[in-house]
Amino acid sequence: MADNKTGLELRSLIKKSGQLEISLARVPVPEPAADEILVRVEASPINPSDLGLLVGAADMTTAKASGTADAPVITAKVPEAAMKAMAGRLDESMPVGNEGAGVVIKAGSSEAAQALNGKTVAMIGGAMYAQYRCMKAKDVLPLPEGTTPAEGASCFVNPLTSLGMVETMRREGHKALVHTAAASNLGQMLNKICLKDGIGLVNIVRSAEQGDILRKLGAKHVVDSSKPTFMDDLTNALVETGATLAFDAIGGGRLAGQILSCMEAAANKTAKVYSRYGSSVHKQVYIYGSLDTRPTELVRNFGMTWGIGGWLLFPFLMKIGAADGARLRQRVVDELKTTFASHYTKEVSLQEALQLDNIAAYGRRATGEKYLINPNKGG
Amino acid sequence: MADNKTGLELRSLIKKSGQLEISLARVPVPEPAADEILVRVEASPINPSDLGLLVGAADMTTAKASGTADAPVITAKVPEAAMKAMAGRLDESMPVGNEGAGVVIKAGSSEAAQALNGKTVAMIGGAMYAQYRCMKAKDVLPLPEGTTPAEGASCFVNPLTSLGMVETMRREGHKALVHTAAASNLGQMLNKICLKDGIGLVNIVRSAEQGDILRKLGAKHVVDSSKPTFMDDLTNALVETGATLAFDAIGGGRLAGQILSCMEAAANKTAKVYSRYGSSVHKQVYIYGSLDTRPTELVRNFGMTWGIGGWLLFPFLMKIGAADGARLRQRVVDELKTTFASHYTKEVSLQEALQLDNIAAYGRRATGEKYLINPNKGG
Repeated sequence: MADNKTGLELRSLIKKSGQLEISLARVPVPEPAADEILVRVEASPINPSDLGLLVGAADMTTAKASGTADAPVITAKVPEAAMKAMAGRLDESMPVGNEGAGVVIKAGSSEAAQALNGKTVAMIGGAMYAQYRCMKAKDVLPLPEGTTPAEGASCFVNPLTSLGMVETMRREGHKALVHTAAASNLGQMLNKICLKDGIGLVNIVRSAEQGDILRKLGAKHVVDSSKPTFMDDLTNALVETGATLAFDAIGGGRLAGQILSCMEAAANKTAKVYSRYGSSVHKQVYIYGSLDTRPTELVRNFGMTWGIGGWLLFPFLMKIGAADGARLRQRVVDELKTTFASHYTKEVSLQEALQLDNIAAYGRRATGEKYLINPNKGG
Repeated sequence: MADNKTGLELRSLIKKSGQLEISLARVPVPEPAADEILVRVEASPINPSDLGLLVGAADMTTAKASGTADAPVITAKVPEAAMKAMAGRLDESMPVGNEGAGVVIKAGSSEAAQALNGKTVAMIGGAMYAQYRCMKAKDVLPLPEGTTPAEGASCFVNPLTSLGMVETMRREGHKALVHTAAASNLGQMLNKICLKDGIGLVNIVRSAEQGDILRKLGAKHVVDSSKPTFMDDLTNALVETGATLAFDAIGGGRLAGQILSCMEAAANKTAKVYSRYGSSVHKQVYIYGSLDTRPTELVRNFGMTWGIGGWLLFPFLMKIGAADGARLRQRVVDELKTTFASHYTKEVSLQEALQLDNIAAYGRRATGEKYLINPNKGG
């Protein structure tokens, strides 16, 4: 199937009729301009943030496979009620895959591009679930000798997000952090960063097994939201760490509000006078994921000094500027095989990524389970 | 009953047993120090913010009257589930009444105090539901000649809150405002300010009658949340005004989230490219009241660039500092009989404020209904 002029690219399309269609398009291999390089993509993770674009609001229990083994097609229904939120992407065949890594196989004439020829590089910018990706030379992250594409595939989203959480904590005047779905790949990185930097971190997990994963990494504060003592356990951990800022990957249900309630209870343990407006300590939760797509429910028993908001990596990087962004990226490269090492459940080809059993597995968004796509696997 | 040495003061007490008790205590009239003045309080409004302290979390459908006509006592039950939130005030007899106005009847020896003798002044600082209130001379607001205590009773909470909303809008880079429960006394002030200052204001009301009140004041954008076309009406008003900041007095239910959803829809009407993270326009709702005490429910269909938080007058005034605070206060005095004029449903004595029918009326927190206590009525 492979030739030198075309390559496969995964596409997600939601039609006006309410049908999701995921397929592999055969597209021309781009010719790099002077300041560009052409990368053979060999590793690209399926992050929760990719699933949003890949399956959109479709109900994947309705998913059906068709097409051929080489050119599989997946279709599924988008519920009527969810179509409004999809309005912006209707009838547009969209490439997917935020980040990845691969080998530079062709370079433009510029010195910067030529210097990368044959190098393994990490990339961010979408359309990574493809055999070839053309990038500006200045936008890629060259990986140190001896780094494989699989090792460098997740250089951006999780590493920069976890570093961004710590950076946000410092910039907004908090002294410790709370994190939910804390046994995730991202959560494990955050634990390593906080242990290394001496920052208090309260990990909220949903099962004993997830707690064990973190304790093995050396996590000091792990609380289990499935236990009846959860609220007390969380409050105690907040008193011990002084954490007044949380990053929440769950989004839906009562958890974000419960964190604020416990922060308020922790603040009031040391309060001297009663104020019916609650403590004057600012309590903040940033929702950066949506593992639970139900509504967020806030039982407002945490006074008036609080905030909840969305948090997203790219606007954050824009806000801190190029110099600070470069500092964070350098740390990722320096600690790629330690702090920022990622582990994958399974490596799949583009075709395998479109098999129903694999979709069911990575679509679960289960903590600690992560798929890696190698668009050139066996190719 | 009146003598020169004692005066009545309204007190609210929540006992460990779960009983609320509201009563009138006879307390010594304070002797003003050199820099203080003694004020005979003649007018103090019952704001929603006062009700929180007055009745706390008690279920007022269980309220019972006892005592005598001169010394009435109201008791009610605090539901078990709500007692945790009351922990900070248990068994403490608390004075009530954030703001008020009255006549200076005694002054300390300092020049500043003496200059106020016989003057009508407005005050903030709690314990205003009392016949006498001792204040530092520098902390009161002297009212212009010809202003009655009733006219000056609400100089702080509503005027400074509405001015604070406009000030917050400017400081946080928004160009227009949304306000809920918009026909309230506060909402009427906000309309007058915005009309005078040329600021776009989207008023959300819950009935046609409330809409009429605002239209009579000249309000341009009034949307009714009880109508089936509410979401479309709101989105259109947001497109017309460009409002990306809302102040919400309701708090509970879905309204705060609906405002964010409509802001997102308004932003996407002009968006050029699809982003599954939603528009990059920051959308903010500040909850400053809790007319609906149910949980806040956010259906997160408004992208990732949003925030919700508590907003409270005093921390806001602390943040902007003394000079800007003085500027806002001066505007209140200058426009006290126009922009900041308050209207009251009924004037009651301290004893009448403790009658079950009056409690039922002001306890409804109905938009446009407001009681004024005159602690020296008939005294």
